[in-house]
Amino acid sequence: MKLIRFGEAGKEKPGIQVTDDKRIDVSAFGEDYTEDFFTNNGINRLAQWLEIHGQECPVVSNETRLGPPLLKPSKIVCIGLNYTDHAAESNMQVPVEPILFFKSTTAIVGPNDDLIIPKNSTKTDWEVELAVVIGKRASYVKESEAEDYIAGYLLHNDYSERHFQLERVGQWVKGKSCDTFAPLGPWLATKDEIKDVNNLRLWLTVNGKMMQDGNTSNLIFKVPMLIAYISQFMTLLPGDIITTGTPAGVGLGMKPPVYLKAGDVVELGIDGLGSSKQAAKNYEG
Amino acid sequence: MKLIRFGEAGKEKPGIQVTDDKRIDVSAFGEDYTEDFFTNNGINRLAQWLEIHGQECPVVSNETRLGPPLLKPSKIVCIGLNYTDHAAESNMQVPVEPILFFKSTTAIVGPNDDLIIPKNSTKTDWEVELAVVIGKRASYVKESEAEDYIAGYLLHNDYSERHFQLERVGQWVKGKSCDTFAPLGPWLATKDEIKDVNNLRLWLTVNGKMMQDGNTSNLIFKVPMLIAYISQFMTLLPGDIITTGTPAGVGLGMKPPVYLKAGDVVELGIDGLGSSKQAAKNYEG
Repeated sequence: MKLIRFGEAGKEKPGIQVTDDKRIDVSAFGEDYTEDFFTNNGINRLAQWLEIHGQECPVVSNETRLGPPLLKPSKIVCIGLNYTDHAAESNMQVPVEPILFFKSTTAIVGPNDDLIIPKNSTKTDWEVELAVVIGKRASYVKESEAEDYIAGYLLHNDYSERHFQLERVGQWVKGKSCDTFAPLGPWLATKDEIKDVNNLRLWLTVNGKMMQDGNTSNLIFKVPMLIAYISQFMTLLPGDIITTGTPAGVGLGMKPPVYLKAGDVVELGIDGLGSSKQAAKNYEG
Repeated sequence: MKLIRFGEAGKEKPGIQVTDDKRIDVSAFGEDYTEDFFTNNGINRLAQWLEIHGQECPVVSNETRLGPPLLKPSKIVCIGLNYTDHAAESNMQVPVEPILFFKSTTAIVGPNDDLIIPKNSTKTDWEVELAVVIGKRASYVKESEAEDYIAGYLLHNDYSERHFQLERVGQWVKGKSCDTFAPLGPWLATKDEIKDVNNLRLWLTVNGKMMQDGNTSNLIFKVPMLIAYISQFMTLLPGDIITTGTPAGVGLGMKPPVYLKAGDVVELGIDGLGSSKQAAKNYEG
């Protein structure tokens, strides 16, 4: 299944992307895609419910706004420098174990919402990433069992303000957590939808020009290792998001560096996870 | 008011600490201390409700377990090296602007719950801290108006695994987010309860020996500045927690360093915010 949420920001309803051009409203199932949904085997229950009620569900217009395809994850855990080529362009060493940082959940927006360039930003950058959604509470998980803890996957743009992240003292979170810096979706593909998560093309264009064009086959630390690793340091809750890092081609890596400005349009996609598009605007407060 | 939550972990009810030895159950008010409660002026509404119904509220035994005094904050934003003496003992420079990092909300426990020393931990350390609870949505707040965004204050022990934090590659979050690493409370003191937040003694003992004995007058960056500063990088939601840093006297700063082991008892307190006590145990999985 491909879970979507649609409608006005903050008032989204749950739906399903049935085919490329058909979406349905599953509000009648009675649950949104929250921690409780994933905890209580919501994916399987929804699939069973759809077998009976799928034909009765209202069709949703393809013009309707999409929101983030899940609601209020407790955290977004990000992996830094997880593609060799991106570590090189960032002038950083390939890490010997995963680098973890957090992104505030207040940064989450729908896949095609505007990117708001923050006040005082000079270096807002893009990062196409494969994100993993956790399906059950994970603490001290073994790598060999980590697959069991995956609910599904989604497309993520890990927007990053490089001045805030790297030049404002201390930890990276400052440059990762601005409002609109975490477009998620269009959909959350349940695990069964993705045949081989280690062979997905991921790409990103700015104003139509290809900037990133990588493949998850080049991930240094693979998804099961990441789940096992993170769960040694903290508990992952159902609905929590792990975003697995970005391949080469970010603005920071250009010579000279290139950053986003109002009017730019960013498009990105991953095989099986759809595409998204954000128009950059300046903050107006 | 002093907001408490009491009862079995995960099933706590809201209450009020009326005096040092009297607690009441305010379940009849019908709301727990969540983001929605703070968003919708819950503190004032509860105060008014108590004027009418306070006498009818059941008394809660002082033997009853306390939980964290608020439920599911969206994030915990921590300030690093915010006391000069702690920066010195950590062999780090006093920062020219605040250092921010996150702590996973899954680390939150009640004030007197056990500290679980994580698997593979060799350097579990303590940090008594003044924490601030946000009362309304904060984005690009001016320092002169930051007071309006405060709901109240609470006592926090920012447990930190120094090996995970400093020696396991990358960002600090790895050593800050383990389960039980964020005891909160005993109570959330509403803003009006604290006469001068810049003159509160804070202290911590290990097995009865005084290890930290500081005063918030020595905070490098004060609370209004911190709220204004953080809100330039991310939106703070009602119920979010800012924990303001720790004074000198952590285990890392001892010569040689001293870390916690099973059987140790940590007690801590802040003027007006009560005291808490955690017994250290090893993780048993």
